[in-house]
Amino acid sequence: MSVRSKTRKPMPTSPFSPSSTAQTLISTMARKSSVLKQTLASFVVVIFVIYALFNTFFHPTDSSKLDSTFSFNSVNSASVVLNELYRESSSNLSGKFTTPVKIYLYDLPRRFTYGVIEHHSFARGGHPVADLSKLKYPGHQHMAEWYLYSDLIRPENERVGSPVVRVLDPEEADLFYVPVFSSLSLIVNPIRPAVESEKPVYSDEEMQEAMMEWLQEQEFWKRNNGRDHVIIAQDPNALYRVIDRIKNSVLLVSDFGRVRSDQASLVKDIILPYSHRINTYTGDIGIENRKTLLFFMGNRYRKEGGKIRDLLFQILEAEDDIIIKHGAQSRESRRAASHGMHTSKFCLNPAGDTPSACRLFDSIVSLCVPVIISDSIELPFEDVIDYRKIAIFVESSVAVKPGYLVSVLRALTPERILEYQKELKEVKHYFQYEEPDGTVNEIWRQVSQKLPLIKLMINREKRLVRKELTEPDCSCICSNKTGINMLS
Amino acid sequence: MSVRSKTRKPMPTSPFSPSSTAQTLISTMARKSSVLKQTLASFVVVIFVIYALFNTFFHPTDSSKLDSTFSFNSVNSASVVLNELYRESSSNLSGKFTTPVKIYLYDLPRRFTYGVIEHHSFARGGHPVADLSKLKYPGHQHMAEWYLYSDLIRPENERVGSPVVRVLDPEEADLFYVPVFSSLSLIVNPIRPAVESEKPVYSDEEMQEAMMEWLQEQEFWKRNNGRDHVIIAQDPNALYRVIDRIKNSVLLVSDFGRVRSDQASLVKDIILPYSHRINTYTGDIGIENRKTLLFFMGNRYRKEGGKIRDLLFQILEAEDDIIIKHGAQSRESRRAASHGMHTSKFCLNPAGDTPSACRLFDSIVSLCVPVIISDSIELPFEDVIDYRKIAIFVESSVAVKPGYLVSVLRALTPERILEYQKELKEVKHYFQYEEPDGTVNEIWRQVSQKLPLIKLMINREKRLVRKELTEPDCSCICSNKTGINMLS
Repeated sequence: MSVRSKTRKPMPTSPFSPSSTAQTLISTMARKSSVLKQTLASFVVVIFVIYALFNTFFHPTDSSKLDSTFSFNSVNSASVVLNELYRESSSNLSGKFTTPVKIYLYDLPRRFTYGVIEHHSFARGGHPVADLSKLKYPGHQHMAEWYLYSDLIRPENERVGSPVVRVLDPEEADLFYVPVFSSLSLIVNPIRPAVESEKPVYSDEEMQEAMMEWLQEQEFWKRNNGRDHVIIAQDPNALYRVIDRIKNSVLLVSDFGRVRSDQASLVKDIILPYSHRINTYTGDIGIENRKTLLFFMGNRYRKEGGKIRDLLFQILEAEDDIIIKHGAQSRESRRAASHGMHTSKFCLNPAGDTPSACRLFDSIVSLCVPVIISDSIELPFEDVIDYRKIAIFVESSVAVKPGYLVSVLRALTPERILEYQKELKEVKHYFQYEEPDGTVNEIWRQVSQKLPLIKLMINREKRLVRKELTEPDCSCICSNKTGINMLS
Repeated sequence: MSVRSKTRKPMPTSPFSPSSTAQTLISTMARKSSVLKQTLASFVVVIFVIYALFNTFFHPTDSSKLDSTFSFNSVNSASVVLNELYRESSSNLSGKFTTPVKIYLYDLPRRFTYGVIEHHSFARGGHPVADLSKLKYPGHQHMAEWYLYSDLIRPENERVGSPVVRVLDPEEADLFYVPVFSSLSLIVNPIRPAVESEKPVYSDEEMQEAMMEWLQEQEFWKRNNGRDHVIIAQDPNALYRVIDRIKNSVLLVSDFGRVRSDQASLVKDIILPYSHRINTYTGDIGIENRKTLLFFMGNRYRKEGGKIRDLLFQILEAEDDIIIKHGAQSRESRRAASHGMHTSKFCLNPAGDTPSACRLFDSIVSLCVPVIISDSIELPFEDVIDYRKIAIFVESSVAVKPGYLVSVLRALTPERILEYQKELKEVKHYFQYEEPDGTVNEIWRQVSQKLPLIKLMINREKRLVRKELTEPDCSCICSNKTGINMLS
């Protein structure tokens, strides 16, 4: 695991503040850092030239044996190594390995960004404001859209070290980010409206259609049919109405529970963590203050894969050291869940209506070892996180056998639990959206990694000739670990 | 396009040569370059600290306005920028963005490498040699296996700048390379044996089975079921017998003509260029010395997709400025092809038994604009090469319409042809296996890009629970440009 800076960046002071001169100097320097790097690359080379020439020409050698071929060879070798070094230093310092991916942030019409916040506020009795950008984005579990947008609109000198650099000219861009608040749009209308009789005035579906209409007019959308666009649809229901029209793009989603395999996949898209809703556990690892063996609080009755929840309640609720309670979303229940997760060794994570849930990320930041019972779950950042080190996976069909789950958990030694906790602590920064090098940077890193395949697909599609295929032209990677021929 | 060094590296002189002292010094320095880089990173930071502190504390500001919060802010900002700069410089110089992918070269039993060369030699009347590694690998169009192996066994100081670094401890490796000479193995037995009555003593199939047996015994193969292994099977028939057993691995292939979509794909595998068999055209761009409009020399009669060849012969052979000849592989015909390609504006590239052919790469290095008539062709390095800029693609069904192809080519202005040639010249280094930063480095770069997905699949497969699926668990990226609903 790479060492990452955890320093929290302060918000920039206003340009009129007395410290702005120092600030400006610092930001100018940061902008100049690429020039500085170029200079350094040259510096390495100059030093090396002097050293290499000195060694080649002035090192005492037996001149009787030194025929012209050999001296040519060594000068040549020196120049080759030099060349290599120069190439390496320049590629390290400014070359393709380190050049951050260039991303263009669409200046979306306000109705798809701050306008959604405004409607959310109106629906809860809020009043119109003069400057929409002063509106506070309301917290919820699918608010990656807010963090990614906020990150991209920061001044570039605060974004140094990000895997993506924002460019203002779309011609320069590798990728295009569409900062639609698609998840917030889903929850603009409160479940219980302020005035009972009032009909909702906001329509998420209209928003989706209007956004698509706008997007399809954009020159750069049309250029590659959206292939180089990144669109956020974190809530499993977000943008559901237009998903077929954006399926070429890199989608940022929570799971693939509600999309078809030709609309989204691990190869094309990115699994985002939910924004955890309970407090991060800031204490050290340990089990002294974690008397509860297993904790769960949430909806007992769910559809589809979530039917397992009721079965788990039945076999677990009688156990003394297990807390398993039915509870809906509220500030009060969040407080109770926070306390429960901070004082339990294990946290139950059964499937809900969709395979993923916010609870997993609450468990992780609580250092409460997740027990995942969700056979189709997809997990964020799985190239850098080995989830077997931080969680226990149990097949649904096995988990519902009376006594099984409890006996597995009781058999784990305190040392083993501490190992899980240690790993949880190591990776929890990946799930902290607010950390300077937390979730946001990791999402951009994941986005960057898609670029070669995106470029390949774009180039390939432009030259493909019409073929009469009987099935779609797909490139896949398959897992061998399925139920096919493996039923037990 | 990045500027790349074209300097050819001389072979290392023997350790006993008089220039070895200089050589040793140079190589020691190269090894030390990572230390040098670390030092430089620290150097940037130190300079910056001094500059930042100076600006923060000594820059004249109106001290009456400078309250403690603001001065805290600016010091804090300085430290944040510093932190970022340090993190960036260390990640640039030694961090994850630039750390080359670590590859372990299997020490395969000789029978799968030099042993194949020896058998190839025996079958042509060669005599046993004491040191197998002195055997010269015989040139042919699928010899990437030789270049990749030769590259990895070079001393690490000559490999500086490569996208992959060889590690000697498999525990450290990200990926494992299996250097089997699988394509040479296919052609060990000559089509016409030296002694007519002799039965071939070499069996490629036995080689494949024996290699699989050996591989499946390896600890690191078993660890991830070969998922992190890179296996070369460049000839479309190479390793055909065991392909199902290596389908988890990254396969280095010429095309997907003879594999199923669950065995190989653009997502999992890498398309290699053939090793061009005619001389590179070293002259400048221009059409003065290219009087022939279109050139083709090769087998007129092929199976499957290659049936188009005979049709093309029929419509093209009557044209005055077109050379289209039937010819088999031989040194003589290579010389004729070389001359033809160097003196023609366009080179015809129809499908053969498989969609790809060596001829395309011969055309490219000849600066003879390829006219590709092969609807299922896959092209190497398509993320970095836009083939529409260097080649003309024509649908098979359209290409066989009498008069069509000729009229398209005649309509192209000299300026347009020069543009194609200019682009060909830009990208031709990607197809030069012998160039220091040519094909070999680009293949390793492509291999490196697969790593995130490989790691994701490995981590995911370890935690996947058994599911009762009705179809394989695949992640795909699909093209919209197929014949489905697009028949015209």
